[in-house]
Amino acid sequence: MTKKFIEISEVGPRDGLQSVKSIMPLEAKKAWVTAEAAAGVPEIEVGSFVPAKILPQLADTADLVAHARTIDGLCVAALVPNLRGAENAVKAGVHKITIPLSASETHSLKNVNRTHEQMIDEVKNIVALLKTLPADERPKFEGGISTAFGCTLEGEVPEVKILELATAMMDAGCDEVGLSDTTGYATPGHIVRLVRAVKREVGNENLTGLHIHNTRGLGLANVVAALDHGITTFDGSLGGLGGCPFAPGASGNIVTEDLAFMLDSMGYETGVDLEKLMAVRDIVLDAIPDEEMYGFTPEAGLPKGYPNGYRTEE
Amino acid sequence: MTKKFIEISEVGPRDGLQSVKSIMPLEAKKAWVTAEAAAGVPEIEVGSFVPAKILPQLADTADLVAHARTIDGLCVAALVPNLRGAENAVKAGVHKITIPLSASETHSLKNVNRTHEQMIDEVKNIVALLKTLPADERPKFEGGISTAFGCTLEGEVPEVKILELATAMMDAGCDEVGLSDTTGYATPGHIVRLVRAVKREVGNENLTGLHIHNTRGLGLANVVAALDHGITTFDGSLGGLGGCPFAPGASGNIVTEDLAFMLDSMGYETGVDLEKLMAVRDIVLDAIPDEEMYGFTPEAGLPKGYPNGYRTEE
Repeated sequence: MTKKFIEISEVGPRDGLQSVKSIMPLEAKKAWVTAEAAAGVPEIEVGSFVPAKILPQLADTADLVAHARTIDGLCVAALVPNLRGAENAVKAGVHKITIPLSASETHSLKNVNRTHEQMIDEVKNIVALLKTLPADERPKFEGGISTAFGCTLEGEVPEVKILELATAMMDAGCDEVGLSDTTGYATPGHIVRLVRAVKREVGNENLTGLHIHNTRGLGLANVVAALDHGITTFDGSLGGLGGCPFAPGASGNIVTEDLAFMLDSMGYETGVDLEKLMAVRDIVLDAIPDEEMYGFTPEAGLPKGYPNGYRTEE
Repeated sequence: MTKKFIEISEVGPRDGLQSVKSIMPLEAKKAWVTAEAAAGVPEIEVGSFVPAKILPQLADTADLVAHARTIDGLCVAALVPNLRGAENAVKAGVHKITIPLSASETHSLKNVNRTHEQMIDEVKNIVALLKTLPADERPKFEGGISTAFGCTLEGEVPEVKILELATAMMDAGCDEVGLSDTTGYATPGHIVRLVRAVKREVGNENLTGLHIHNTRGLGLANVVAALDHGITTFDGSLGGLGGCPFAPGASGNIVTEDLAFMLDSMGYETGVDLEKLMAVRDIVLDAIPDEEMYGFTPEAGLPKGYPNGYRTEE
């Protein structure tokens, strides 16, 4: 029978690289994206369209998009903070745009100096821009709700606020919403609660992706909980790049390799070749040798004889 | 309403200390056990009854048992490899004895130089010993099936072998069986499969505990899977002592603090005070400063304002 497909979205070239000091040369980024796509990862967030003075590590995002678009079958994604970013993303030719909106208004003001209302206006302006494009050239537009599971400044963000923002983004014209555990506060119970509530609010098909961090070691546990509640896309960062899992405040994305191993072992189809995926680490390590890469499965290796007798086949 | 109780069993003084070079002084061990019991951990495996020349780190297990028995309400557990160990455990006054039996016969021969048949005979001899004791002085006797999820020597261990051993141990007179992921090979799908199969074989109430490692980063994900299938006891090691999670072959027990945080956040009753539990790390670190302790939650801290609005209450 057909296995269920779960999409792994690699965010290392964006979330990983924006969090480290080293600047990876464009050629290495291209090699990374090429190799990871060849390993079967179907979507890669290659960068952010933000001013180079804010994130010099990502200044070459447009060039990287141009390269990534030449890779057959790869969904090329990018983050944009505002209309200006979206214009540049469209010009570069991305397939998918995500705008992050922080559920914690304190965080939103501190981070991008915008209220929720101003951010929703930005979303509307981006939708207006996208509507000027022919349908077959229009990138998918996701509204990403960050700090959805709590904020280091505000603490708990009430569920009603998340629901309100999710509705506002769908009403403004987003194609879908996503939930981001920016602070690494999410726990399996919270994941289930919030995913169910948001799906009830905006429709089952309009929330399919989660961006989970591993700050408190619960990243993959949260994935297991989410898989039972209709989430089909998970972000990961190769080698957990950009977050030391043992340092406070670290970005600490889920390690893509561990995520891919777990999903594969559970009998999900991911399209990913695990050995090829783990080999991609060398490209990153060679290019930015001062940075650390993490990951349990890459260090320990696959179980002896894997997948025979190990993988769940249902 | 009443929350469901999930038992955390601390195995650091046994599994952690046997895996590190440093020898912790008895007084520090006592302080550790006292503090962790005071933090609410209901069961502690304080050592193994093996010859001191094999594991000098655990040579004072009998003295530690004597101390631990003075702590009100604490279940004092120990590992025994054979009848001789069980005799000493009984003499010391433990409340619970576990004998590990490796599902991989290759591993069993290499590790303790015994076949499965010889190990089952040992189990029978221990049961005979325990039957000579008055019922109220008889420790609980668990047959722990190690390498249950695969072996670094044999690879996959067929499920039928696990079922055969589980039945043999129950028939020999064990009070219950447990499953140990000695090699860190377990994955959520495998956990569900094997737990269901063993429960079907020996009865739901005779398999309640899992000993899961975090070698491939899936430890807590495996716990989430197991919680849905009637497992109510999980082993953990404070600070993941004894296993560098990033080194191949490491013991890599689940970190007790991360486990306790996750269970608490999911609305389970564990009896554990999270802040007090995390403070116990200092006792261990002071006593064996050359060893490393791990743990995501202790490093990152609890979410701001936890548990208000975070904990699942159903």
